[in-house]
Amino acid sequence: MPTIRRIDHLAVVVSDLEASLAFWRDALGIPLAEVRQVPAEAAEVAFLPVADSEIELVRPTTEESGLAKYLVKRGPGMHHICLEVDDLAGMLQQLKAKGIRLINEEPRVATDGKKYAFIHPESTHGVLVELYELARP
Amino acid sequence: MPTIRRIDHLAVVVSDLEASLAFWRDALGIPLAEVRQVPAEAAEVAFLPVADSEIELVRPTTEESGLAKYLVKRGPGMHHICLEVDDLAGMLQQLKAKGIRLINEEPRVATDGKKYAFIHPESTHGVLVELYELARP
Repeated sequence: MPTIRRIDHLAVVVSDLEASLAFWRDALGIPLAEVRQVPAEAAEVAFLPVADSEIELVRPTTEESGLAKYLVKRGPGMHHICLEVDDLAGMLQQLKAKGIRLINEEPRVATDGKKYAFIHPESTHGVLVELYELARP
Repeated sequence: MPTIRRIDHLAVVVSDLEASLAFWRDALGIPLAEVRQVPAEAAEVAFLPVADSEIELVRPTTEESGLAKYLVKRGPGMHHICLEVDDLAGMLQQLKAKGIRLINEEPRVATDGKKYAFIHPESTHGVLVELYELARP
């Protein structure tokens, strides 16, 4: 049976990355691991590890993406949570069998090989949930 | 220097606890540890542990609380994230020195002895952040 392992990350949508880092890094003291350009998502992402999870600050780099439109509509704040699952394809089957609406019906594969899928917030009562399956040794 | 240790929990505000459990517990398979009545917060809370963190589903039990008004205004969804810190009083001093606006200027103490404080979302760019200091042996 597919099992949720842990919270992989919380994604926060931001309009000004330096202003957000002034809170998360400079005031709270969470170390900044990396800022990465992610052209595939039209975003710049800052990764701040917290124990076995991460906080990700995501800044849209165009005005066209879904994320950019979300930012305009709702303002900066929580965007989604990502849970690690040991068997993503199996979990998506299980969710479909329970009548859960999925944004991605099948696992998608990121450029780094990570498998992921989003669940539709309609079925989660307002929370955008991403699932990751990580390659582990 | 006060240090953030981990994500303690994510709090999701819900209008129908059973409907939300149908997703988090029944579809995702996250075990439900407990449903607790919290009269001090006028809420019913379901606790679902995920590794070293928790997802908390919070249902307002009156129409008067801040949480109930938030639910009416924004609908169900993410409400706040809670980070564990090793020294809450020290962290609040550090945040004030950095010009961060706090909802609780001093640590508050819950009925179970846990110290907590909320940071104002104005200073976090839209994320309501709670800090916990836990009594540890």
